[in-house]
Amino acid sequence: MIKKISHVGVAVANTDETVALLSKMFGFEVGEIIEDSAAGFKSTMISGAGVALELLQPVGPQGMIQKFIEKRGGGLHHISIQVDDVDAEMKRLKALGVQFVSEEPARIEDNKIAFIHPRSTNGLLIELTQK
Amino acid sequence: MIKKISHVGVAVANTDETVALLSKMFGFEVGEIIEDSAAGFKSTMISGAGVALELLQPVGPQGMIQKFIEKRGGGLHHISIQVDDVDAEMKRLKALGVQFVSEEPARIEDNKIAFIHPRSTNGLLIELTQK
Repeated sequence: MIKKISHVGVAVANTDETVALLSKMFGFEVGEIIEDSAAGFKSTMISGAGVALELLQPVGPQGMIQKFIEKRGGGLHHISIQVDDVDAEMKRLKALGVQFVSEEPARIEDNKIAFIHPRSTNGLLIELTQK
Repeated sequence: MIKKISHVGVAVANTDETVALLSKMFGFEVGEIIEDSAAGFKSTMISGAGVALELLQPVGPQGMIQKFIEKRGGGLHHISIQVDDVDAEMKRLKALGVQFVSEEPARIEDNKIAFIHPRSTNGLLIELTQK
């Protein structure tokens, strides 16, 4: 079952600069910070103005966020939809012909996530996340 | 006063294709459709999975959405934050040094909107919208 929007992911070259700007403008506050060196990014959840954003900063030169920034110059990266059961949702969507970036969900700390491949959405990167 | 996230804008080459895909996957339904030929885009609000998206399709070769698609290949375009009073919000933010894409809010049907310039947000395009 689909619940609600979880957050919007934003690729940034410098998390601290973006946090400073958005805090000053809208009172955004910093929440959970996770560094995933293997995947090549640091994730910083911030919220304010009724919006939850995941700031994604590259760690090292090889990760997907670094590539995204090089190709597109940073900015909005993905929409995350919170679901009860990522495995069930993947099964349901695969039966409709939807493709995923990886065949199995990934675990990041307490979250289980899966990215729908943009080719199945006309270029929109959607993450399913189970907390 | 800031209220909440209004929607997330997505630049698409073909609205119908994206609606068909997202409807099939998540039961997205189509809401208001506005064509702004002068600004060079057609806007289609869709909602589903607890998410509201504004699909922005180019109309003609000169608009900002066409340029965005040519430069970045489409995908997530902006985050819209719903506020009570766009003028008051612009005044408050300008006093903090924040720059806007246009000096005055624009009217699109029943909405009054203003875009914060990405240079004030480290590359994140934020729209303020008053309904």
